[in-house]
Amino acid sequence: MNEAEKAIKRIQAQKGVEGVIVVNAEGIPIESNLDHQRTLHYTYNFQQLLTRTQRVMKDLDPQNEATLLDVQTEKTNILISTGKEKHSYVIHWVTQPPGFG
Amino acid sequence: MNEAEKAIKRIQAQKGVEGVIVVNAEGIPIESNLDHQRTLHYTYNFQQLLTRTQRVMKDLDPQNEATLLDVQTEKTNILISTGKEKHSYVIHWVTQPPGFG
Repeated sequence: MNEAEKAIKRIQAQKGVEGVIVVNAEGIPIESNLDHQRTLHYTYNFQQLLTRTQRVMKDLDPQNEATLLDVQTEKTNILISTGKEKHSYVIHWVTQPPGFG
Repeated sequence: MNEAEKAIKRIQAQKGVEGVIVVNAEGIPIESNLDHQRTLHYTYNFQQLLTRTQRVMKDLDPQNEATLLDVQTEKTNILISTGKEKHSYVIHWVTQPPGFG
């Protein structure tokens, strides 16, 4: 088990954590505990959001860069963490995920 | 002093809080403690970010809506809080803001 896989296991073990996706610098998912279709769907959306966020932050201050993006909704909490070589997405359900229960 | 003004004063009194902007549902700033140019610049950028975020969240779950967006960078922490009639942006500098010190 490599470092990314270990980190996924650790985060996923926390209560309410539904999905963890790690993508490389090109935005391609390299680790995920979700099925292929959901991984691609989430990755596509979060990558768009991250690109827009970085553009906005750079426009406000060219020396600045977003390191963490936290989107809270009534049902979920999405954490997008950025790094030089990898980004990670953590999908944390506040209530039950769709299709559950 | 109305409720929005009171809230701005309260948030602004917290250490490191540089700017507070309240916009109406149309994205027009109605309260701000920043100068006109910076208020418009931040509002334009954060509104774009909020629109994109809502689009992404709706794509993942049409019943879902972002209530809080927290963007952390090395220097700042931007909080975008949404409401039915108003949104607010709080710009919290982790270190010194540009042009200060």
